[in-house]
Amino acid sequence: MNSGKILIVSSTHGNEINPVWSVNQYSKQGNIIDKNIEYKFIIGNPLAYEKGCRYIDKDLNRSFNLIKNNHDTSIYEIRRANFLVEKFGVNGSEPCDIAIDLHTTTANMGTSIVMYGRREKDFCLAALLQHKFGLPIYLHEKDEKQTGFLVEAWPCGLVIEIGPVAQNFYDPKIINRFLIIISSLREEINKLKNKQKQLPKLVIVHVHQGSIDYPRGEDGNINALIHPKRMNQDWKPIKKGDPLFMDMEGCTKSYNGKNTLWPVFIGEVAYKEKNIAMSYTKKEVINLPTQICEDFFN
Amino acid sequence: MNSGKILIVSSTHGNEINPVWSVNQYSKQGNIIDKNIEYKFIIGNPLAYEKGCRYIDKDLNRSFNLIKNNHDTSIYEIRRANFLVEKFGVNGSEPCDIAIDLHTTTANMGTSIVMYGRREKDFCLAALLQHKFGLPIYLHEKDEKQTGFLVEAWPCGLVIEIGPVAQNFYDPKIINRFLIIISSLREEINKLKNKQKQLPKLVIVHVHQGSIDYPRGEDGNINALIHPKRMNQDWKPIKKGDPLFMDMEGCTKSYNGKNTLWPVFIGEVAYKEKNIAMSYTKKEVINLPTQICEDFFN
Repeated sequence: MNSGKILIVSSTHGNEINPVWSVNQYSKQGNIIDKNIEYKFIIGNPLAYEKGCRYIDKDLNRSFNLIKNNHDTSIYEIRRANFLVEKFGVNGSEPCDIAIDLHTTTANMGTSIVMYGRREKDFCLAALLQHKFGLPIYLHEKDEKQTGFLVEAWPCGLVIEIGPVAQNFYDPKIINRFLIIISSLREEINKLKNKQKQLPKLVIVHVHQGSIDYPRGEDGNINALIHPKRMNQDWKPIKKGDPLFMDMEGCTKSYNGKNTLWPVFIGEVAYKEKNIAMSYTKKEVINLPTQICEDFFN
Repeated sequence: MNSGKILIVSSTHGNEINPVWSVNQYSKQGNIIDKNIEYKFIIGNPLAYEKGCRYIDKDLNRSFNLIKNNHDTSIYEIRRANFLVEKFGVNGSEPCDIAIDLHTTTANMGTSIVMYGRREKDFCLAALLQHKFGLPIYLHEKDEKQTGFLVEAWPCGLVIEIGPVAQNFYDPKIINRFLIIISSLREEINKLKNKQKQLPKLVIVHVHQGSIDYPRGEDGNINALIHPKRMNQDWKPIKKGDPLFMDMEGCTKSYNGKNTLWPVFIGEVAYKEKNIAMSYTKKEVINLPTQICEDFFN
């Protein structure tokens, strides 16, 4: 925490519009400036937001590993990723220490946190929010097919993922949930800094194990959908024999693994193009050394 | 009913995918051929369906008034409208008498019927479905801004509109509702033809009165959303003083008209680009002369 600035990014995916409304509402109420920690607000993908689509050329939230090696500035999202890092990165013109990327999902994820890898500062922030609100944490790691997330371009950063809500649909409930996170986050960090509260000793995470596609026919088309019993059951454990999909004849395809798993992003609309029907996680309890709290403020 | 064929169109809007699944499931179960009345199935906008967007160049379901006068075949949807009428129109190569256009909405409309204008044959079909299932009917008429609907290109035709469901999201409940309509429609028509049932003497419709936009600021941007008390309240009456919108400061904008109205398509995502936050209707009871049933089968 050198600059004391937190970057709040909304609409990194252009059709996730509720966070933009929340941020505008928060700003309008005159809450931007705080003595200790300042928020900077930015729309991640303004062109896609204007058009109401997820992205223009390429998923912006998979474009941040390409900045260094890829100078293909014909791709709008590469240009945008460059811009965001050059402006708000730790060495940027308006440097921020932390990036909070606000997303919505069509899946029934509730209010949740997504972490990328096991960075100590991320654990510190995630633990703070989990302790305050009881939020589940999805720890995404070791997935070669999914890389280049926005928050990874900052030394500390989390995604706040809230659903279910349709793309491009304003939902007052979802807007309020983002407002709660935005208004609490800075307060909580300040309390921790002023030793008004302690970091919890452990954090519970759901660690990414892989993703599965919809069953498909020989023509490549989806031929079975999320099973009615699996719909909206994000974060709920599955064991061998539990239903996953149902085809047009009413036949069930069940989970056949040995281990209990916790599926997330069940039926997320935006992941169909990534051939993901749901992702599997397993639960893990992580002990937090007290040291990481001190490191957070250095 | 000369040819005894009914055209069932799904995905006239490419991101309304549940009807396509219902139709495929129905076909797979071997239900296509019936001795008396045959179904023809077609995807309205296959290119938009493939891309998961509402349309390519222009809303297909506003393109059917342009066929005669507009030969601008650079517009995909004009070409597609021409194709559909040339193939399945009453003078087409595979003529159909009736068009049933299956749509989904993000609004909480339930299972409903949309009629365009006051054609006797449409009343006959709508009355049949209302009598069987108790479905509400939205009668769209006298709206110069909204013309050129698909079903108007056939001598008889209705839209079946089911929601709420997100664009591009498969929902088993919605799929089942379409299946019920598809499997019942032909049966009901046959019963009527064989005098196994009578047409009801009256039909209740909600007649289109106009549409209202979201409140907007000087910059043209939406600055108030559907009021939480108005969300999901489609078909429920409003009277003077009832809340419609809420802005970022929490201020309510209320309905200020004298007459009781029934709003529909409240907050429909696809209508934002048409500057429609909701449409107003008023209730009307229409008597059906027994004659129209006989005319239906001539």
